[in-house]
Amino acid sequence: MKIAVLGTGEVGRRLATKLASLGHEVTMGSRTADNAAAAAWAEENDAAHGTFADAAGVADLVVNATSGQVSLAALEAAGADNLSGKILVDVSNALDFSGGFPPKVGLPDGGSVAEQLQRAFPETRVVKTLNTMSNSVMVEPSRVPGHHTVFLSGDDERAKAEVSALLESFGWTPAQITDLGDLSSARATESFVELWLRLYGVLGPVDFNISVVTPAV
Amino acid sequence: MKIAVLGTGEVGRRLATKLASLGHEVTMGSRTADNAAAAAWAEENDAAHGTFADAAGVADLVVNATSGQVSLAALEAAGADNLSGKILVDVSNALDFSGGFPPKVGLPDGGSVAEQLQRAFPETRVVKTLNTMSNSVMVEPSRVPGHHTVFLSGDDERAKAEVSALLESFGWTPAQITDLGDLSSARATESFVELWLRLYGVLGPVDFNISVVTPAV
Repeated sequence: MKIAVLGTGEVGRRLATKLASLGHEVTMGSRTADNAAAAAWAEENDAAHGTFADAAGVADLVVNATSGQVSLAALEAAGADNLSGKILVDVSNALDFSGGFPPKVGLPDGGSVAEQLQRAFPETRVVKTLNTMSNSVMVEPSRVPGHHTVFLSGDDERAKAEVSALLESFGWTPAQITDLGDLSSARATESFVELWLRLYGVLGPVDFNISVVTPAV
Repeated sequence: MKIAVLGTGEVGRRLATKLASLGHEVTMGSRTADNAAAAAWAEENDAAHGTFADAAGVADLVVNATSGQVSLAALEAAGADNLSGKILVDVSNALDFSGGFPPKVGLPDGGSVAEQLQRAFPETRVVKTLNTMSNSVMVEPSRVPGHHTVFLSGDDERAKAEVSALLESFGWTPAQITDLGDLSSARATESFVELWLRLYGVLGPVDFNISVVTPAV
């Protein structure tokens, strides 16, 4: 599949590298065509890079790995026409590090970044996922032993099914993928990041995740 | 121990019953001395009830099981003198059901109910715990199989140790009790309730909880 990964930070590079290793044609998008991190990543992975618009324009599916604080601006730069009809996998969180650690978690308009993007791009099918864990666990769930959980939120059932398949290609099992419902549930996973940050503060840089435990599991 | 449980709702009754069954002298506190739910509970459990001030006044340890939306008012009614020097176990969440399900989760002043109470009663040792699960699981963790997690937040280490011992008397093991640090971490567990509510929406009224999974567990 032709996939755009928007964002050149650690999360974007990790996801882009995984997707490229799985055989997808990945283009890394950034604000400017000459972004050094994107160019270095593309060189190393024999892949492409370009502006947000370049990347989204050629893609069948778009991953938003920009900071949630600037995601709306990044997607506006990508352009509604380049996003129309496509799945947007939103893995972002709006973290404000200006006051130190832990950062403040922003929830735009009392909702979520995901809903903000969906409202701005109604022809795009936004699916929120993977934003509740470190990027190392996102693409290699076996780093955390046993049962643990990845969440999905979105208004389009077929889009969620396609994103589930993508997650399975990363190593997630269907039992680990928990569909929380429509996109308003993204505010729950974006709020959860508060707890993730505190756990990170306690546990340190180890691979961890949460598991939803029920009597049936 | 002499324990006041403030609040006559499902959470308050569940905790009060458990504490009474463990041999503690429990007084259930409510806004008025003649609260019917408190009187019925006291009758059934051969225990006491009274106003918030009555209950807190005779107690060594106070449990706040009122709705987080009214906890500050309830504790003000209990009175600073009746709370001074005592541990306040805060299990509350500030849920606003006025817009239907899921309720809105309120975080007073951008912080947490727990911090709001600590600021109002600086001589009281506030420990936040148990607010991330259903009341059935709070007092009987074995309803959820295997490893799962209860969080602790508080500024007073000795108070947290005493509350840990209380949790252990409920059946929680030390490995299940995760100390998140100072009381500001209560905003993380109060924020988590957004996700709990969505999981409840998906899973229904089954016993569930989250587990923090690390390679070491």
